[in-house]
Amino acid sequence: MKEYRLIGKRLPRIDARDKVKGRALYTDDISMPGMLYGLILRSPYAHAKIVKIDTSRALKLPGVKAVVTGEDTAKVKFGVISRSRKFIDEYPLAVDKVRFIGEEVAAVAATDPDAAMEALDLIEVEYQELPAVFDPEEAQKPGAPQIHEHAPGNISREHHMKKGDPDRAFKECDLVREDTFTTQSAIHAYMEPRAALASWDLTDKLMVYTSTQTPYYVQQHLGRTLGMNPDNIRIIKPFVGGGFGGKSDGLSAVEFSAALLSKHAGRPVKIVCSRDEEFTAARRKHPASITMKTGVKKDGTIVARQSRAILDGGAYCSLGPLTTVLMGTFQTLPFRFEHFQYDGYRIYTNKPPCGAMRGHGGPQVHFAQDAQLDMIAEELDLDPVEMALKNGLKTGDESAAGFKIVSSGFAECLRKVSEAADWQDKKRTEKNDPKKAYGIGLGCGGFPSGAGFYFNKTTSAHSSVIIKAGEGGGLSVLTGASDIGQGSDSVVCQIVAEVLGLPIEDIHITSADTEITPPDMGTYSSRVTVAAGNAALNAAKAAREALFKVVADKFEASPDDLLAEEQKIFVKGSPEIYTSFVDAVNLYQKKNQGSPLVVKGSYNSPDPLSPTYSFGAYICEVEVDLRTGELTVLRYTVGHDCGQPLNPMSVEGQIEGCISMGMGYAISEDLRFDGGQTLNPSFLGYAMPTANQMPKIEITHVVTDDPHGPFGAKETGEGSLDPVAPAIVNAVYNATGVRIKDLPITSGKILQGLKDKDR
Amino acid sequence: MKEYRLIGKRLPRIDARDKVKGRALYTDDISMPGMLYGLILRSPYAHAKIVKIDTSRALKLPGVKAVVTGEDTAKVKFGVISRSRKFIDEYPLAVDKVRFIGEEVAAVAATDPDAAMEALDLIEVEYQELPAVFDPEEAQKPGAPQIHEHAPGNISREHHMKKGDPDRAFKECDLVREDTFTTQSAIHAYMEPRAALASWDLTDKLMVYTSTQTPYYVQQHLGRTLGMNPDNIRIIKPFVGGGFGGKSDGLSAVEFSAALLSKHAGRPVKIVCSRDEEFTAARRKHPASITMKTGVKKDGTIVARQSRAILDGGAYCSLGPLTTVLMGTFQTLPFRFEHFQYDGYRIYTNKPPCGAMRGHGGPQVHFAQDAQLDMIAEELDLDPVEMALKNGLKTGDESAAGFKIVSSGFAECLRKVSEAADWQDKKRTEKNDPKKAYGIGLGCGGFPSGAGFYFNKTTSAHSSVIIKAGEGGGLSVLTGASDIGQGSDSVVCQIVAEVLGLPIEDIHITSADTEITPPDMGTYSSRVTVAAGNAALNAAKAAREALFKVVADKFEASPDDLLAEEQKIFVKGSPEIYTSFVDAVNLYQKKNQGSPLVVKGSYNSPDPLSPTYSFGAYICEVEVDLRTGELTVLRYTVGHDCGQPLNPMSVEGQIEGCISMGMGYAISEDLRFDGGQTLNPSFLGYAMPTANQMPKIEITHVVTDDPHGPFGAKETGEGSLDPVAPAIVNAVYNATGVRIKDLPITSGKILQGLKDKDR
Repeated sequence: MKEYRLIGKRLPRIDARDKVKGRALYTDDISMPGMLYGLILRSPYAHAKIVKIDTSRALKLPGVKAVVTGEDTAKVKFGVISRSRKFIDEYPLAVDKVRFIGEEVAAVAATDPDAAMEALDLIEVEYQELPAVFDPEEAQKPGAPQIHEHAPGNISREHHMKKGDPDRAFKECDLVREDTFTTQSAIHAYMEPRAALASWDLTDKLMVYTSTQTPYYVQQHLGRTLGMNPDNIRIIKPFVGGGFGGKSDGLSAVEFSAALLSKHAGRPVKIVCSRDEEFTAARRKHPASITMKTGVKKDGTIVARQSRAILDGGAYCSLGPLTTVLMGTFQTLPFRFEHFQYDGYRIYTNKPPCGAMRGHGGPQVHFAQDAQLDMIAEELDLDPVEMALKNGLKTGDESAAGFKIVSSGFAECLRKVSEAADWQDKKRTEKNDPKKAYGIGLGCGGFPSGAGFYFNKTTSAHSSVIIKAGEGGGLSVLTGASDIGQGSDSVVCQIVAEVLGLPIEDIHITSADTEITPPDMGTYSSRVTVAAGNAALNAAKAAREALFKVVADKFEASPDDLLAEEQKIFVKGSPEIYTSFVDAVNLYQKKNQGSPLVVKGSYNSPDPLSPTYSFGAYICEVEVDLRTGELTVLRYTVGHDCGQPLNPMSVEGQIEGCISMGMGYAISEDLRFDGGQTLNPSFLGYAMPTANQMPKIEITHVVTDDPHGPFGAKETGEGSLDPVAPAIVNAVYNATGVRIKDLPITSGKILQGLKDKDR
Repeated sequence: MKEYRLIGKRLPRIDARDKVKGRALYTDDISMPGMLYGLILRSPYAHAKIVKIDTSRALKLPGVKAVVTGEDTAKVKFGVISRSRKFIDEYPLAVDKVRFIGEEVAAVAATDPDAAMEALDLIEVEYQELPAVFDPEEAQKPGAPQIHEHAPGNISREHHMKKGDPDRAFKECDLVREDTFTTQSAIHAYMEPRAALASWDLTDKLMVYTSTQTPYYVQQHLGRTLGMNPDNIRIIKPFVGGGFGGKSDGLSAVEFSAALLSKHAGRPVKIVCSRDEEFTAARRKHPASITMKTGVKKDGTIVARQSRAILDGGAYCSLGPLTTVLMGTFQTLPFRFEHFQYDGYRIYTNKPPCGAMRGHGGPQVHFAQDAQLDMIAEELDLDPVEMALKNGLKTGDESAAGFKIVSSGFAECLRKVSEAADWQDKKRTEKNDPKKAYGIGLGCGGFPSGAGFYFNKTTSAHSSVIIKAGEGGGLSVLTGASDIGQGSDSVVCQIVAEVLGLPIEDIHITSADTEITPPDMGTYSSRVTVAAGNAALNAAKAAREALFKVVADKFEASPDDLLAEEQKIFVKGSPEIYTSFVDAVNLYQKKNQGSPLVVKGSYNSPDPLSPTYSFGAYICEVEVDLRTGELTVLRYTVGHDCGQPLNPMSVEGQIEGCISMGMGYAISEDLRFDGGQTLNPSFLGYAMPTANQMPKIEITHVVTDDPHGPFGAKETGEGSLDPVAPAIVNAVYNATGVRIKDLPITSGKILQGLKDKDR
């Protein structure tokens, strides 16, 4: 590996101190004079016609400045995947009908939050309740309530893919297993609830501060739904307290209502969702039922896969049509399949819409896949690690879904974790304590480093960065990329600083302000490090080229002979011949009649699927109390190939975060419903792991130095989640002999499994 | 004149509606979480040593989070004209010594304004009073108190210029007059007091919102005085409620104290000056004593001028060293002098520092010049208008100070106003009413359209503009130019829209945010329309060129054959062959792999003095109550040559504002002192004209279509002030025979003059 000055170093985030000390400003921290407080009225019915809405009493309440309903809108539907008309199925405020409990029906803005709350009660909505359906199997049956007119059988999306001839191939296999796995309803539970502050000015320009992953989509979708040129809308993303896919829908009723209320009231309006609203009405992960059939040779070589997934989509599309695809394609990572078939069905139900959540379909199918492979290995008396090594995708391979593997450290991940975890010995640990049992399990994953396409029609590059040099040698870097807590601002600054030989403190970043920064797809599909990183790299190289040109002239050297290091531009091999960086900037200005150095760099994925893929192998160790079924996760040993970790501390943070989130998914997080009513809409009811439940974590960085990533980097924020849950599931089996096929692994299920086994 | 779509049209300002409705955000409208309220402790002595400051009691007061004094600073002096070390004479917070009543000694930040106010009382400052001097004549005498060690005789600046041989020339003149004129202390009285909100973050980067005319100077001077790289300081200029030169010093204790308090407190700090502080301690106009000697031929041809000015500078330099020069050079407009001599002396006194104020030395010397020429005309029995016509600078002339006149509509201004005001008849109006007298008078002016140099060392162009095109066809325009109420944002948008054939609503401007926008000298010396306007023009042309290139390719035409009009790009002569502007932007992106259209344009004055000069002639009509001396201004007839008025409504607004301000200067505004103590620091005591005192105003635009101005425009914001006061003075003389040589023209002076005349 080449040694860099900043790249690959453990650097604190540029915003860490301000965040820790409470100085970072999130949307709710921002106020404007005359600002009103907005609240949203939500449907109490899972499925109903809206017969009439009377806002007159609410409007008469002192302090109330505006009330809006679907009737005040242009009645234009939106949908984040707006390239396909059939995925545009949702009004930002309900028109005529509501389809889930919590759907947005009206919004109110008042001078204080109490008045706004009281006004909600005074909005009189006459509903005519309709029969509702909550189960995706029921929803497909003839005679089931029809949720959308355009979707007979309530099929929101179906997706079919086939490679080779699995049916024929299964006949030639030594072992074919078919299992059905089911997963629960889980949700992002980001720290910062959705929030928007909109100010519609008197020249009909709109400014919206919003907690979003995708400001440029918000700009487009607000434009479409409000009937405005999107360039008249300025979206500013302040600090964001997490998203995990939950703020990537391009629009929500929060932004739309704040904007419309601001227009009506002639004052700025801020809406901040309550935690209850987040749990009951925000996007969430798709619950899925996955029937998976896998055929192998007796040496463990995987030959064929056939699978069918039923996704409980909830009432609207959101990003679900894509999830339906990804639950197929993501099965093709990290293993080779000669024959592969997938049939996915996303079904509308009268529940809150499901969309993207970290891993985006991956956690569901990797749970199924790794659990099933663990069972197959046992049946064939093979070591799961050996079996994974045999089947893992290698550099140069193409997955069954067409993913081109330009670099793969998967095998090395497996070898490293197996050794580091003492896998061979530990998996044979004797189970002779009647009170508690130790177990160890493997989980594997692979993940694209960013989608290679926009969800909407656009001519913009996937990422662009503009750099403007200051006379003091500081650089203003303008990027459309959205730091939502993952640290992309730090990565962009690090890359620019590395290229130009500057300390990171000399880079001043402005990110995700549509009026100022150049377009960027947004923060989703683990794309930002590769895409915005490459755009930053290209912009920094353009700046370097411009500066080298004037410095080369000065030294009568060739630009190729120059180096930018330590705030200086050197002649290679002659460290005494240099100009300081700040002098070079001023020299550039002098040579250009004072014109500031302004350069840009862009990036597009070279592959429409993804430029490159990350890999990982996780070994989990658990202990199960055989009397209570209580499960304790002891340790994770992680091998992760994210190409070149630009900042190992950030990569480790992502992995640790994934382990926490994956553990919650595996063990405790579960949104429960009574019909369409969420039963546990609080942090108390939705049991996320707490800090004291975190296991020991040992991470090995497998460095593959990817040819497409900036400085060789690949993604690490989502792929790291996929192996977490199956590793626990397999460890629980190793400990207890209880095979969990239905998440989460509750102590009740373990006890029941132990009981069934004894029978 | 060429006819344009937007240029030359009466357009409302782009921000007019938001300002009128109170939606525009000024510095005091902006708040941040945890923000503290800052106040400044000021010296009660005109001249004293600071023996000791004890802040301990103040710091103990609940709510007080920081107190800073000169001892907490790096003790670095600043001065806006920082190219010359001798003009850098002021600490942002006093160190060791105070030199005027109101000088900034300490600053405090507290959680509420009351606590901050109380804390001011608890700061214990031990002073040792020193003898003070308040009169510039006294201050020059041997033995006078020495205000600055570096300035013996208290001479802050002297400036001498000579062309030809006035002494010899006077001998050949038919008439030589010498008069001494004196002017009072006047102040800007901008609507918005100075205000700054500083946030020093935990990575040692500083952000300051401030009400300034010169954000880039503030950035530089804050950097210097705080010992920081200026690129680590971000200055944002929100809406500003006027400056008139009073916010052009590059730094004030307000910004500095807010920044330092924020650093100490670890929280944002806002300081807003009270009106009292503005009247007692802010910059103001130089009172001056001008001895002017002018020699003419009997036909009225001016031959020679010799003048000497003594400026009462107050305690520090501010922009006064430049005022000292300008009071000489501005005398050379709008008339020719073959022989010219000027000797200016700016004297330090223990009063608040004087600096730039609208017209910057011009109002003082034009009062003297036009009054004296009126006297000369009377003595020679010549018509003042005819005499002005004979001596006025013409296109191609060079003034005695070296001002190169590239376009002059002065003669046409004179002819037009003379006719419009019925000058020839009215000046002969019989004076036979014992109660009241009618009078008419002429005032003339000429003014540079922007200085041709920065006050600090820099490699930046005088103005730059960056344009970024949005996918919706909207343009983000980034300009360093500071709209302080004069409307430069509107002008920049208008120019870009005109060049690109867009409606002005499609232009989205961000101005004067040092981290985002490119450098600009700032708003002073009436430079912005010409400099930022030309930069905008150049940037817009660069955008047009880039778009024409891709459109020409599409149509297989030459870029030279294209036209941008009505949101379309046409082939000239074939209106049916076009692409919409928005399509052209997207075509550009497609041809450039999605890279956004980002272009820049810069401008430097081609002349180190100024690129071009405006001219004006004003006729004022008054009525004087001969029993009370009460003066009523009846009417102004204005001829103004600002090249091409880009927006006649804005030009007229400037002229009307100048008439109001000039009337105040002529008639009523006068800061009175008892020693160093301001006696009338309020709007009640400082009698600005009110709306109901405004006369009728008739404006004739003399269009000269200047070759250097953008679309032919020249300045209009300062030159329009110069003729206002002398026109009144001459009208009063015409009415009453009372010659006022000492401003303001109070009714007492008129009565005294009438009495003296009768004697």
